[in-house]
Amino acid sequence: MSTRTKVGLIGLGAMGRGAATNLLAKGYDVVGFDVSAGALDWLRAQGGTPAGSLAELATRVRIVVCFVVNAQQTDDVLFGDGGLVGRLPAGAVFIACSTMDPGYVQTLAERLAVHAIALVDAPVTGGAVGAVAGTLTIMGSGTRGAFDEARPVLETFGARVHHLGPAGSGARMKVLNQLLCGVHLAAAGEALALARRQGLPLDLTLEILSSGAAGSWMLADRGPRMIAGAFDHVTSAVDIFVKDLSLVLDATRESRFPAALAHAAYLAFIETSARGLGALDDSAITTHYDRPGDRD
Amino acid sequence: MSTRTKVGLIGLGAMGRGAATNLLAKGYDVVGFDVSAGALDWLRAQGGTPAGSLAELATRVRIVVCFVVNAQQTDDVLFGDGGLVGRLPAGAVFIACSTMDPGYVQTLAERLAVHAIALVDAPVTGGAVGAVAGTLTIMGSGTRGAFDEARPVLETFGARVHHLGPAGSGARMKVLNQLLCGVHLAAAGEALALARRQGLPLDLTLEILSSGAAGSWMLADRGPRMIAGAFDHVTSAVDIFVKDLSLVLDATRESRFPAALAHAAYLAFIETSARGLGALDDSAITTHYDRPGDRD
Repeated sequence: MSTRTKVGLIGLGAMGRGAATNLLAKGYDVVGFDVSAGALDWLRAQGGTPAGSLAELATRVRIVVCFVVNAQQTDDVLFGDGGLVGRLPAGAVFIACSTMDPGYVQTLAERLAVHAIALVDAPVTGGAVGAVAGTLTIMGSGTRGAFDEARPVLETFGARVHHLGPAGSGARMKVLNQLLCGVHLAAAGEALALARRQGLPLDLTLEILSSGAAGSWMLADRGPRMIAGAFDHVTSAVDIFVKDLSLVLDATRESRFPAALAHAAYLAFIETSARGLGALDDSAITTHYDRPGDRD
Repeated sequence: MSTRTKVGLIGLGAMGRGAATNLLAKGYDVVGFDVSAGALDWLRAQGGTPAGSLAELATRVRIVVCFVVNAQQTDDVLFGDGGLVGRLPAGAVFIACSTMDPGYVQTLAERLAVHAIALVDAPVTGGAVGAVAGTLTIMGSGTRGAFDEARPVLETFGARVHHLGPAGSGARMKVLNQLLCGVHLAAAGEALALARRQGLPLDLTLEILSSGAAGSWMLADRGPRMIAGAFDHVTSAVDIFVKDLSLVLDATRESRFPAALAHAAYLAFIETSARGLGALDDSAITTHYDRPGDRD
């Protein structure tokens, strides 16, 4: 029988697989669940332990990391038919890594506390590459006790693991993070499309803009894809920013905060999605500014 | 009598002084002019040669670098009473380093060509620090012949000296540069003000946002000043971005280009200026989002 510490892991997409790889490498026994059978096969091949159901997983662990897509899926995992709540042992710690509405997260902490489950709200930034490399920045929050239990687990895939306050603080930080990511991405699209319209040499434009005060992580990362126009190679989709900037709009409305830049970026993304491009790579935002024929 | 190559330098503010220091260090005789007597004293103390007037300067050099504030001052220097035009020798090269409207710059090249003066349109980025260190990025343009003459001069204070095309191309690149700088600066102000409103720890917020995909040069540079609130220490004023983003708006209108992000940033800056804060450091843009009492 294994003496390794067991940790549950729900959601074996790109992010979850990166986390699993690091947990296994650092000596954890990963008890994993995903709705995709292929994902469970992948986990077995890595040396992890697939669970047949959420209910089965709940009986075998007391710490769970959740990398599903959004709040709806998180809620289903916990409170849906056959979900974790009512099955996890008292004192269990649920680590939610998805990007979710801060208000929902705060309420979720209270709903879980009723069942003696502690919520650690821990959204991440750094992408699938960072999850595999173990270099994610983790915006953690929750009670100190629960966070201290979660920390060693989080440190297997996070290089910078922060505690920001009570549950909901992590979600609020992630909203700020996505505000800047979305605005910088839309701004990069705007600037490079304007360069194209004005007939400036695009590779040199990107080099100049990236080298100085106009630089951003998003410009350097997405700029080459905007110029190449290879939007079918999807790293992260346009519709992800429609969702994440919606969370920004909700959070700012609640705070009575006039986030004009975030709104302008949101419109650029949803207009791009409205033109049928929502599933393309988010660098396709730059086509928002094209005239018919600009890329022929 | 000096055998060093003479170069004229007009405008001895922060940028012009940085350029002068590098030109002198690299063996040029700098014949300088500024409306401020103190600036001319400064030049003499550095080993340069103050000119008593623009007319005097024009008789002594055939290459002139101009670091005045805007297009109006540039036009005065050239075509105003006692200006350079009509006095500079045929074949002279005028290097304009100010941020100006691309349309104006293009016309200026034609107006100067009539007088056998070649315009090198060469706006810079990298700030006063870069001018002193000789590390500016220079967005040069103009005819190849004129640019080749200007290049050794530009390389004394620029680390990356680019030729982008005919005169006006440099100004267009600078407009793109200022679009991104202005949007990133306003976005940093928006995100850090929202963090303040939501009670997040500000230093840690800046550290987290700067460390990943949300990062920008402007966030890293202006963020600490936004948090400290030391807006009286002016590195670059709010009204500079009112001016530079106005150039962006003009250029995009001319191109029939819907630059929504640039417009949102412009509004944040001009609203901040409208509240009487135009002369403060541009990091004061973050107060645009404050409620009364937020910084008491």
